[in-house]
Amino acid sequence: MINCLVWNEFVHENNDAEVAAVYPEAIHGAIAAALGQDAELNIRTATLQDAEQGLTQENLDWADVVFWWGHAAHDKVDDELVAKLWNKIIFDGVGLVALHSGHFSKIFKKLMGTGCDLLWREAGEAERLWVVEPNHPIAAGLPNTFRLPHEEMYGERFDIPAPDELVFMSWFQGGEVFRSGCTWNRGRGKVFYFRPGHETFPTYRDANVCQVLRNAAHYCAKPAFAGVCKGSEAYGHRPNNLEPFTVGE
Amino acid sequence: MINCLVWNEFVHENNDAEVAAVYPEAIHGAIAAALGQDAELNIRTATLQDAEQGLTQENLDWADVVFWWGHAAHDKVDDELVAKLWNKIIFDGVGLVALHSGHFSKIFKKLMGTGCDLLWREAGEAERLWVVEPNHPIAAGLPNTFRLPHEEMYGERFDIPAPDELVFMSWFQGGEVFRSGCTWNRGRGKVFYFRPGHETFPTYRDANVCQVLRNAAHYCAKPAFAGVCKGSEAYGHRPNNLEPFTVGE
Amino acid sequence: MINCLVWNEFVHENNDAEVAAVYPEAIHGAIAAALGQDAELNIRTATLQDAEQGLTQENLDWADVVFWWGHAAHDKVDDELVAKLWNKIIFDGVGLVALHSGHFSKIFKKLMGTGCDLLWREAGEAERLWVVEPNHPIAAGLPNTFRLPHEEMYGERFDIPAPDELVFMSWFQGGEVFRSGCTWNRGRGKVFYFRPGHETFPTYRDANVCQVLRNAAHYCAKPAFAGVCKGSEAYGHRPNNLEPFTVGE
Amino acid sequence: MINCLVWNEFVHENNDAEVAAVYPEAIHGAIAAALGQDAELNIRTATLQDAEQGLTQENLDWADVVFWWGHAAHDKVDDELVAKLWNKIIFDGVGLVALHSGHFSKIFKKLMGTGCDLLWREAGEAERLWVVEPNHPIAAGLPNTFRLPHEEMYGERFDIPAPDELVFMSWFQGGEVFRSGCTWNRGRGKVFYFRPGHETFPTYRDANVCQVLRNAAHYCAKPAFAGVCKGSEAYGHRPNNLEPFTVGE
Repeated sequence: MINCLVWNEFVHENNDAEVAAVYPEAIHGAIAAALGQDAELNIRTATLQDAEQGLTQENLDWADVVFWWGHAAHDKVDDELVAKLWNKIIFDGVGLVALHSGHFSKIFKKLMGTGCDLLWREAGEAERLWVVEPNHPIAAGLPNTFRLPHEEMYGERFDIPAPDELVFMSWFQGGEVFRSGCTWNRGRGKVFYFRPGHETFPTYRDANVCQVLRNAAHYCAKPAFAGVCKGSEAYGHRPNNLEPFTVGE
Repeated sequence: MINCLVWNEFVHENNDAEVAAVYPEAIHGAIAAALGQDAELNIRTATLQDAEQGLTQENLDWADVVFWWGHAAHDKVDDELVAKLWNKIIFDGVGLVALHSGHFSKIFKKLMGTGCDLLWREAGEAERLWVVEPNHPIAAGLPNTFRLPHEEMYGERFDIPAPDELVFMSWFQGGEVFRSGCTWNRGRGKVFYFRPGHETFPTYRDANVCQVLRNAAHYCAKPAFAGVCKGSEAYGHRPNNLEPFTVGE
Repeated sequence: MINCLVWNEFVHENNDAEVAAVYPEAIHGAIAAALGQDAELNIRTATLQDAEQGLTQENLDWADVVFWWGHAAHDKVDDELVAKLWNKIIFDGVGLVALHSGHFSKIFKKLMGTGCDLLWREAGEAERLWVVEPNHPIAAGLPNTFRLPHEEMYGERFDIPAPDELVFMSWFQGGEVFRSGCTWNRGRGKVFYFRPGHETFPTYRDANVCQVLRNAAHYCAKPAFAGVCKGSEAYGHRPNNLEPFTVGE
Repeated sequence: MINCLVWNEFVHENNDAEVAAVYPEAIHGAIAAALGQDAELNIRTATLQDAEQGLTQENLDWADVVFWWGHAAHDKVDDELVAKLWNKIIFDGVGLVALHSGHFSKIFKKLMGTGCDLLWREAGEAERLWVVEPNHPIAAGLPNTFRLPHEEMYGERFDIPAPDELVFMSWFQGGEVFRSGCTWNRGRGKVFYFRPGHETFPTYRDANVCQVLRNAAHYCAKPAFAGVCKGSEAYGHRPNNLEPFTVGE
């Protein structure tokens, strides 16, 4: 079983009637429902409004992978909680799935080290996603292309480090393209960025998008062997050499 | 269950008493024994001396991953059989685990596109392997370093394309280093090169080496979804556009 | 000065009046003219119809970078000449710029190790290229996007090894996307694939396309230090260890 | 001409007689002398003791590439100055060459997004560096291997994102290996990490190390075209589509 913590800032659903109409169950509710179709996934949701902004030690210790949706309240997320989550990813191998406007979240930017900026437009245009690496587990069960009738546009240049694996690319009606599904190894953890998911469209009910979310849970989850790989986390001072030598020229 | 085809040229064991003494069960026998400790792996062995050099259509259709050990007889392997195996890897997603002197095999060179040359020395010196990516499935269950008391030295520059993932690096007593565990995606298939395994040393009985072989079987095996990813293999002519447009400026 | 060998199969221009009308100077002539605007580039052209298919020893020894345009006659290119060119790239550091339908040329496929297939459509639709890595020398002097009003469509999945650097991505009117500018290191040489350039459209007269060709000549050219990097090409047997050791446990 | 800002915390040279004896000109002095042998390089030095910790706006605007040596005083570097330098790298294309214990500097960690930890030992053992990519500009003019008779050991696992290019690997007498020369693109800038350079050994007077420093200045320097690549830095809102479309299914 894989423990999935679905974190959502949960702001638009409360402030914006249009969003509330699209996602009466809230965005975290929709994502949880998508994940819930997979019997191997345990799901918890958490929001910025929860105690400790939903990032309690108990939640962080429980999670094998964290899904992150944020947009309007990136700056409200506490730096110390971000540091705690970063530690879990880097040193314990917890995975992160950053969604849509999560490209500008503190945790994603901290893991990337770059500006993470991009082009954007809200015009309700169609997005078409293409599978670039059909043998990648995150693409399992998908057709080679699928269409979202209405989405926000995100366009290149996306200011990220070149991804370790480029799984999806997007086409937009208005003329732009985007690296829409990207993975990076960071420390012991796996990070996946997935572009679609604007709050005013029912993207998280699209069957293919939901399949990607489930695949990503499996791919990014802290591996069972993470605690087993003996000694590899023990960084630091090694006063004794492993092989004998005599100091000299 | 994962079907593992262990291919060995099976030449040194027949021609060289020293090798026969180290591997009375032959190198393919030792590799098969290592894999056999994992109940999820089905194992077949095949050699150059078998009908169709062991690469019958039936064997190729059966295999999810092929282990390849060759050295003295690279040139004897039939070009058409190599092309058949290459097709299985590229289009069907069968994996390849190239071992030691297999760096100069026809199939590995064809997949890499480079010269695949390196430095080498037979001096029975110690090799020490280091885990570079502890979160990689091929490193599961390993200590952060392990030592082989006697091995052939392989040294950089190893003329390969930069690996998609560098999992292990080797240290040699005589002063050289080597990228010892490397993965590449090629078409639908996964390729893993693993350096150790000289015919005159009992390397394939080392517990850590055996663990790597089992891990590699799981990692490189043709994924269950390979046939499911709908349409993605259908390359070629697409006369009809997916989105409407009018030709013009 | 950089020596650029522009190789073209030179078939369509002779067989097809439409192509001859678009490129009366032939495709190699148009590419040579584009490169000729850069005073640091020396240019020679060569075609399949020339002696030794244009790949004489003298031409290969002279070239710092080879531009390759082919389509209808890939199979007519002699295997031994391809091997000669491959040797120049891998061991001497000569660069290769593979253009458009050159994705299926023998030399490109040999360097990639994959099938190199893709989707395609001839509908005269618009292509829009996007700069993914604005700090890359091949993108120097370009706008962040530029449009070609009529091109053949190439779509993903493009069956290539993940590029070392993804410089351009393409958008097509009909709904497809493509990794249009990709680099790979292969041996001592640099390879660049650039998608645009269908024979029935005047793409090689587009100012931005011409700028890419000139940038690629500089980027892929055999470096001045290629012969200087002492000893690094000397693969093979190293009987003597560099550091002293005693064989033992 | 390339403007090189050589930044050194300049602590050990003041506090430790052994270091002062090895580097009476200070570490920044030794690096500046190495760079000064190249007539195309302009050199300034700056230290933590200078006004604004040596990172004045004037220095940052002047620099095409920054060399960074720090160890004992990483925490003393002001966060806002680090943010200023990070902005220069990400958005203006200034390069960074992080040296030795600079793996733990704030600027390097911020660019990497990982823990950047490693194994280490001070035993005065020999280090041997190997060129992994002989066609890389940072390896220009070097032999395929060179030896430093006494260095601090750094060993894997080095907790970095997999480098975009792995140029050097190190061998240590005591049995460890290390990825010693690594490049990453971050935003518009190029980052190079180079391992050698412990304060108690005259490593920055080694001819090969000095050659690497000069090569790195050229490779990482802000490119002349950085300001020319029109529009590519203009992230943000794009209200108008480039290609016409009608919103609908």
